[in-house]
Amino acid sequence: MTRAYLDWNATAPLRPEARAAMLAAMDVVGNPSSIHAEGRGAKAIMERARAQVAAAIGADGADIVFTGSATEAAGLALAGRGLSGAAVEHDAVAAWITPDLSVDGQGRVTVPDPGRATLQLANSETGIVQDLPQGLAVSDLTQAFGKLPMAFNWLGCDMGLVSAHKLGGPKGVGALILRRGLDVPAQIRGGGQEMGRRAGTENIIGIAGFGAAAQAAAEDLANGVWEEVAEIRNILVSALDAHAPMTIFIGNDGARLPNTICMATPGWKGETQVMQMDLAGFAVSAGSACSSGKLRASPVLAAMGHDAGVAASAIRVSIGPGTTREAALRFADAWGACHRKFRARAA
Amino acid sequence: MTRAYLDWNATAPLRPEARAAMLAAMDVVGNPSSIHAEGRGAKAIMERARAQVAAAIGADGADIVFTGSATEAAGLALAGRGLSGAAVEHDAVAAWITPDLSVDGQGRVTVPDPGRATLQLANSETGIVQDLPQGLAVSDLTQAFGKLPMAFNWLGCDMGLVSAHKLGGPKGVGALILRRGLDVPAQIRGGGQEMGRRAGTENIIGIAGFGAAAQAAAEDLANGVWEEVAEIRNILVSALDAHAPMTIFIGNDGARLPNTICMATPGWKGETQVMQMDLAGFAVSAGSACSSGKLRASPVLAAMGHDAGVAASAIRVSIGPGTTREAALRFADAWGACHRKFRARAA
Repeated sequence: MTRAYLDWNATAPLRPEARAAMLAAMDVVGNPSSIHAEGRGAKAIMERARAQVAAAIGADGADIVFTGSATEAAGLALAGRGLSGAAVEHDAVAAWITPDLSVDGQGRVTVPDPGRATLQLANSETGIVQDLPQGLAVSDLTQAFGKLPMAFNWLGCDMGLVSAHKLGGPKGVGALILRRGLDVPAQIRGGGQEMGRRAGTENIIGIAGFGAAAQAAAEDLANGVWEEVAEIRNILVSALDAHAPMTIFIGNDGARLPNTICMATPGWKGETQVMQMDLAGFAVSAGSACSSGKLRASPVLAAMGHDAGVAASAIRVSIGPGTTREAALRFADAWGACHRKFRARAA
Repeated sequence: MTRAYLDWNATAPLRPEARAAMLAAMDVVGNPSSIHAEGRGAKAIMERARAQVAAAIGADGADIVFTGSATEAAGLALAGRGLSGAAVEHDAVAAWITPDLSVDGQGRVTVPDPGRATLQLANSETGIVQDLPQGLAVSDLTQAFGKLPMAFNWLGCDMGLVSAHKLGGPKGVGALILRRGLDVPAQIRGGGQEMGRRAGTENIIGIAGFGAAAQAAAEDLANGVWEEVAEIRNILVSALDAHAPMTIFIGNDGARLPNTICMATPGWKGETQVMQMDLAGFAVSAGSACSSGKLRASPVLAAMGHDAGVAASAIRVSIGPGTTREAALRFADAWGACHRKFRARAA
């Protein structure tokens, strides 16, 4: 049975360009901190990747701090600052903020004091996209980077968080993007790497993959690939809606990512749906699936005013450039069949 | 010109076993925190690697916390504890300790209170190996792991730091090893990964490479490969000594790594030697070469009582299983030729 991977917001498949860059980097021995030819070769790979990421996100290479994850970048940007945020933020951000910003029924966050606040550009569970206020302290760009056109230097925020594996790079690489002129003290200390902002020998192979993936993602965006993704997403929503007119599609009425469907069928638990779909050959998720064994109801939906029944019954279907119309419709049929059984049991 | 890489202590070439494991991991889409088949597939790769690292170092998988570097692991083990250490520790450890332990002329460190101290097992610059006291709080095992037989569970220390890239795994992966029953609070927070000890989506490809490299390194050790390395190292020392009888070989008279030569030629600056050897086709280093652009004299040699002239003129030649006798002798000849020019200028 051919499986269909419909959980791109959890992690995207590795792009062939990333794989090729990583393979090439494997042949370069040398520590980028060494001054001999082998060290300079490793350094050159890293700096090429830095330029690729910078170009893709509209920032300058000198303002990019490579980290081991967007989660690590969140700590660099947020720890000890007590910034305000909303309950729709990812756990990696939520760990460091005061969750006192209000969220309306459409998931929109109000930010009274941007200079003391953090706000995600796009939500991983619902795909809802925020209007970022000028002067924002920190924005989690993880889900948006590679899916929405953006130029960090024009976003008007001081710091951005990104991750390689959400746009087809490897897992275990992220970055903090700084507004020109800003700096952060290192949290991982004991070496001068990343201009003193993050010590430790760099993940050269992973960083090479990040650079190549970011460049390919930017080209995809420019070529309209995500508009095609949005078309398939819309077809999929229509097909699912035809199977289950009582199912709620969350975030459908505002700006959102082109690839994400968040849908709730009260009474049918999200994790049950995830497991049934898994057995049927489809990978989808309940919640953001970014922390180990997480099966709690989504705080994102609760923050939007949905009751516990809705939140507990939500699943996320997130597609990508590799998702065919045929796979999408096959999923809709399989989900519809399970939905009929659920309705029969519930009746 | 065929170059010879003689800087294995800075970073080792990627082992073919690591490359193969990383390639296989590239084909596995899925976030290890996801509960569907793709997620479980990613999790399985990570847990296999954890078991490989555990077996190679003589610990239990549940006590291994994967990190982005040994430097990150050092922070997890040491930050905020104010442990005592010696000036021979790596920068990644030195960043967090009180450097009040005494070092003798042979590089041996005295540890009056092991439960409040950290001590490396082997020094990256000199290769000098320490007798670890029982009850030691933390040991940096980075340079020893893969070069010396060891069983963490018998070392008698609470926490150990290791790195993948020193034994033929990829750069950008490390681990903290815990004595059974110990735990550490996460520093990178915002997710439940690594049993709550280190948040962020895991570097699956890199971790797969670490596991395969650790297993291969353990097999090499068992097969006596490093005894052959030591033989070539000894031949190289003899050949260098014949060229320059006034050169000091540091650490030759005690327990040390099988692959490391630390040699000082007062008056001939270490970085000059590194650059001359680089031009001649050989990668060696001055100092530990683990922080960006570092060209200061080694604090390790100063701690052993060597004067600034010796410390500033030291280079490190570190070989590995891939180093041939022919390459070693070729290096000795090239270094000897440069040494003659240095002597002629100095005369």
